[in-house]
Amino acid sequence: MAALHRAVELADRGAGTVLPNPVVGCVLLDPDGRTVGEGWHQRAGGPHAEVVALAAAGEAARGATAVVTLEPCNHTGRTGPCRQALLDAGVTRVLVAVRDPWPTAGGGIAALRAAGVTVLDLPELAAGGDPAAVSVVSAAEEVNRVWLAAVRRGRPWVTLKAGITLDGRVAAADGTSRWITSPPSRADVHVLRAAVDTIMAGVGTVLADDPLLTVRDDAGRPSVRQPLRVVVDSTGRTPAAARVRDTGESAAGAATWIATAQEVGAGADGRVDLVGLLTELGRRDRRHVLLEGGPTLAAAALDAGLVDEMWLYVAPIALGAGPSVLQGGRVGTLTQAHRGELIDVARFGPDVRLRYRFETTSLGDPVGPPGPGVSDSMI
Amino acid sequence: MAALHRAVELADRGAGTVLPNPVVGCVLLDPDGRTVGEGWHQRAGGPHAEVVALAAAGEAARGATAVVTLEPCNHTGRTGPCRQALLDAGVTRVLVAVRDPWPTAGGGIAALRAAGVTVLDLPELAAGGDPAAVSVVSAAEEVNRVWLAAVRRGRPWVTLKAGITLDGRVAAADGTSRWITSPPSRADVHVLRAAVDTIMAGVGTVLADDPLLTVRDDAGRPSVRQPLRVVVDSTGRTPAAARVRDTGESAAGAATWIATAQEVGAGADGRVDLVGLLTELGRRDRRHVLLEGGPTLAAAALDAGLVDEMWLYVAPIALGAGPSVLQGGRVGTLTQAHRGELIDVARFGPDVRLRYRFETTSLGDPVGPPGPGVSDSMI
Repeated sequence: MAALHRAVELADRGAGTVLPNPVVGCVLLDPDGRTVGEGWHQRAGGPHAEVVALAAAGEAARGATAVVTLEPCNHTGRTGPCRQALLDAGVTRVLVAVRDPWPTAGGGIAALRAAGVTVLDLPELAAGGDPAAVSVVSAAEEVNRVWLAAVRRGRPWVTLKAGITLDGRVAAADGTSRWITSPPSRADVHVLRAAVDTIMAGVGTVLADDPLLTVRDDAGRPSVRQPLRVVVDSTGRTPAAARVRDTGESAAGAATWIATAQEVGAGADGRVDLVGLLTELGRRDRRHVLLEGGPTLAAAALDAGLVDEMWLYVAPIALGAGPSVLQGGRVGTLTQAHRGELIDVARFGPDVRLRYRFETTSLGDPVGPPGPGVSDSMI
Repeated sequence: MAALHRAVELADRGAGTVLPNPVVGCVLLDPDGRTVGEGWHQRAGGPHAEVVALAAAGEAARGATAVVTLEPCNHTGRTGPCRQALLDAGVTRVLVAVRDPWPTAGGGIAALRAAGVTVLDLPELAAGGDPAAVSVVSAAEEVNRVWLAAVRRGRPWVTLKAGITLDGRVAAADGTSRWITSPPSRADVHVLRAAVDTIMAGVGTVLADDPLLTVRDDAGRPSVRQPLRVVVDSTGRTPAAARVRDTGESAAGAATWIATAQEVGAGADGRVDLVGLLTELGRRDRRHVLLEGGPTLAAAALDAGLVDEMWLYVAPIALGAGPSVLQGGRVGTLTQAHRGELIDVARFGPDVRLRYRFETTSLGDPVGPPGPGVSDSMI
């Protein structure tokens, strides 16, 4: 199982560059258990983890065991399926940590078995209670949580991010908010932004702060790859001159979608239906939305069960007035409160980052018809 | 200097039981550097650290070096000064990490030198830039920060404590607040309460929650030693039947002071003058006030520069409405915000405890005339 934990480590290196694809890691072991090849899926459009590992192993792949974090794809595209590459190279045994939830690409396990390869199906062992299998399956699920949840649920994983004061506020009474958090925290936010494929903000934030919502480096230069920017704007109030509409050079060509209630559909309150919006983003192959506020949109998303993770950068400053990070919503009394789980604490300069996971609608099972398959155009 | 760090550890064992006295630790070393006795001041009314260490060492104290976290007292009371006890036992060398800021008890260094004892005055070495001296002096200052600050400034150290949601609130929209934090957090609060000599709350909290403000164990039984309870109640609204007024058996005889503006004096806003209140508490030998809310009093205390530390227990729950931990005050724009320093992060069950230190008025120098000396009645 050590090789599988290693494969999970390898997979994680693709985080942020492979979307809309999953992260995948692969380790090839010879019959004596020695590693003869490693690979991971590095970027959308690049070769799959198995192909990279097979290339590294060369002839040593013959008779080897392939240890993979995700079921090898069974989908014939530009390069042929990984299942076939493994067979061609002479791999005789495959360990799979997570089954591909996608019907189009799935079926790799069955096809490998049909071709005479021994497949160790770890989810099956984990379901039987094998502790080592439970451990590696859960690590492989966790490293791919964004993609798996997005594919299984048909809508993107949502991370809510905010820089707040120790009294939970995102701005002072007069609206000033630059900067509550320190440069190390803000640099970490750019790492987070670079790992998502969609950045979302409410029109209130656009009107108040006129943000660019692009990914930039320390010197303020925009990155080559930019997430889609989505403004939740029920009645179409985004100004024509708003910086978020700039799709030119200073935004590195980042695309923008002003999502109105007219286009997406409205909830009972006349505002943009957030479930509908997320479902539409899923249809457009968006896997990971970074929700950057404001407080009303954040509370509404939480109420709708759409927030998977919350990243709060808490600065060591106190205000006593000004908008809180979550404002409004349906919680009237303590027993109705949204309950999350603290999964990580880290310090960034003078700030502390608290990460919470929330139980949202079913993460474990595929819901409804999946979106489009992993087509070659995406890989 | 290892012995001094050990003495600081010993001193820390007295935290919470020695008030209104300082914590003190003492290590006795023979001429070969071997430890021949250790002691710490265990409780107000008990023997001083030096006396405990000398008793442990017995005859081995002759010719020994005494390593102490605080200047040995030079005050003749029931038992005579520690300075004399060291001389009588034949100690020939003394290392002192912090000078006693209290004129009544101070002067021990001079008296020891006059009697022919070699005194290593570490604050002097630290002022000269000696790195080892700087390290032990700062550790010895830190372990005694509450007492030193209280004596030097003539008013108690103030710790603000609150259990909050991840959006910074202390109650839901309907006022419900039991329980935001988990049992492990609440148990830690009782440890904190047991370490202070005063618990303070605003009348709003008394009217809303009717708290007892006593120290209790896990089973809810009150401790023998109870801090003074102070209600900040500008216009005298504390109900006659409020539980905080109960000084009987269920409160283990805890005393209560309803501090009104009429008695203490009022600020420009007509409310209790908090600086005056803290100064009066200092005159009454109170060293450590635990401020338990509510939000208006907390913000006013912060504005007045009276909050030394803030302990926030952040629960993994989200509300979207309800009072924030700090409400009101003078901060209108971000540049006016109170800036603290994150000094510690710890997890308690599902919660995280964030500890902040705030720069309040001069901690380093004695201010004004000191309160009463360390009289025998206190020791």
